[in-house]
Amino acid sequence: MAATPGAPPRVVAFGGGHGLAAALGAWRQLTPDLTAVVTVADDGGSSGRIRREMPVLPPGDLRMALAALAGDGERRAEMTALLQHRLGGTGVLAGHPVGNLVLTGLVELHGGDTVRALDTLCELLGACGRVLPMAEVPLDLVARVETVDPDDPARTRTIRGQVAIASTPGRVRDILVAPADPPVHPAVLEAIATADVVSLGPGSWYTSVLPHLLVPRLRAALAASPARVVVVLNLEPQPGETDGFSPEEHLRVLQGHLGGVALHTVIADVDSVVDRCGLLSAARECGAELVLAPVAEPGGAPRHDPERLAKALADVLGAG
Amino acid sequence: MAATPGAPPRVVAFGGGHGLAAALGAWRQLTPDLTAVVTVADDGGSSGRIRREMPVLPPGDLRMALAALAGDGERRAEMTALLQHRLGGTGVLAGHPVGNLVLTGLVELHGGDTVRALDTLCELLGACGRVLPMAEVPLDLVARVETVDPDDPARTRTIRGQVAIASTPGRVRDILVAPADPPVHPAVLEAIATADVVSLGPGSWYTSVLPHLLVPRLRAALAASPARVVVVLNLEPQPGETDGFSPEEHLRVLQGHLGGVALHTVIADVDSVVDRCGLLSAARECGAELVLAPVAEPGGAPRHDPERLAKALADVLGAG
Repeated sequence: MAATPGAPPRVVAFGGGHGLAAALGAWRQLTPDLTAVVTVADDGGSSGRIRREMPVLPPGDLRMALAALAGDGERRAEMTALLQHRLGGTGVLAGHPVGNLVLTGLVELHGGDTVRALDTLCELLGACGRVLPMAEVPLDLVARVETVDPDDPARTRTIRGQVAIASTPGRVRDILVAPADPPVHPAVLEAIATADVVSLGPGSWYTSVLPHLLVPRLRAALAASPARVVVVLNLEPQPGETDGFSPEEHLRVLQGHLGGVALHTVIADVDSVVDRCGLLSAARECGAELVLAPVAEPGGAPRHDPERLAKALADVLGAG
Repeated sequence: MAATPGAPPRVVAFGGGHGLAAALGAWRQLTPDLTAVVTVADDGGSSGRIRREMPVLPPGDLRMALAALAGDGERRAEMTALLQHRLGGTGVLAGHPVGNLVLTGLVELHGGDTVRALDTLCELLGACGRVLPMAEVPLDLVARVETVDPDDPARTRTIRGQVAIASTPGRVRDILVAPADPPVHPAVLEAIATADVVSLGPGSWYTSVLPHLLVPRLRAALAASPARVVVVLNLEPQPGETDGFSPEEHLRVLQGHLGGVALHTVIADVDSVVDRCGLLSAARECGAELVLAPVAEPGGAPRHDPERLAKALADVLGAG
């Protein structure tokens, strides 16, 4: 579906965790028509504890996306800080972000309707965008990981669960989601179908970025959408997931899971790329344009800078 | 301090739990200048679990008072329902009202400032009044309870904690709070000093109504205030606390703890009183006028009806 002339660009951001928060922090500067489609495969920390207690989607990544989209004003800032605040003390509540419990309670209150609960919290925070889960049921990631123990007769081991995968030494060979074809909310499919741009990454490559491409209904919606697909590469490899991966290796892993999805642009931080030719070649293999820009925080912290990333993304929007 | 002519009456309601909620449901129909001063001695259920984990006031009674004062409108109703919603599932979170966790998190976020956290939630809910804790530290109730076991050589046993007291068979002989002279927030003392009316009850007599009179600074503030003091008696005795107590016995127990506080009016449900002469005599001993009115829910449930109670309280306001 073509964008209405004069209307703000419609953007969908795929991801999870701090990476998605960085992307949303950039996109919110460029358009008010923004939808985050958030991973629901986390099984660690507060989200994992909540998942084991009740049949809800893991709330942590959803909460972080809500916070990244929160509007201005003192009261909204207080509410956002409250949702992000982790309970203290020395007991079973310690470490739960209040927002995880609020979202879980609101979903229960609305009979399991996660999208309604998220829309309520978006309104409460004056969010500049919408937050949706990438699937309607909690997902488990299942990975084949290369063994690093020379005495292990197996060359790979199958590891189930995001935490287990991230804490297993050795490279991830491939990954899938369980259940294999989870239901996806119609609002997600609609957002993808009518988007001008869909962004993937940055973020934990195997556990926050690839999972969206592993869900058949999301991948099909993305392949059928006229949206330009933008990949924002990470600034450095992630221990336990992508040890020693160069940017071009990140991209090749992604390419292996595209299944009919065409990439339009790959954005990489100009100072994080060692082998420019290799990355350019990998981008071309995906049919994508490579944009090398300064998108990391000045000062060397391995984090994307929202203003700098916004500048690079604005160029992508302008290229439409 | 005399009320400003033409200003709405300033009302302070002492109590806790469902009894205080009933009083607030009545008072809110009569004045916008309403302050709930809420017991912080609960050590059971969700509040007890939270108290044992972190150094905060037990949030349950405060949460119920907030809900009783919540304003109108769909979004406020949803927020109120969320705060009252108890988490489900089969784990350590089950049974916690979301509002207890939200209030606890907000207090932590504001460095232990419970009053600031309560004011924020009042604003969020559009509350028609203010909710304050009766003390700035969590309290324990300590009671002497008559033994019911004929083999027990002791005639009374000292029982510590609200839950333990409520679940110990036998009548409560006397009760005190620990610590004995807890700090009270200045906003509470100010509200009492400038009140036109202060109401006590209805509610669990020993654990929600008397505790306020056991806090020296509250009792002194009440004794020094020009406010008329109204007692709303319970509709029936409460097992474990006031087994077999008649309304006049409730009043005599209260009288034993008044310590300089003058009662103005005693409101009793006309259909719950068997011995009108006995109650009238008990009220006169306290120096109070007795109002017998239909204040229970029609249909026989032992609950105060907010509209009927409001009518009786309006007469007290009118008598000023």
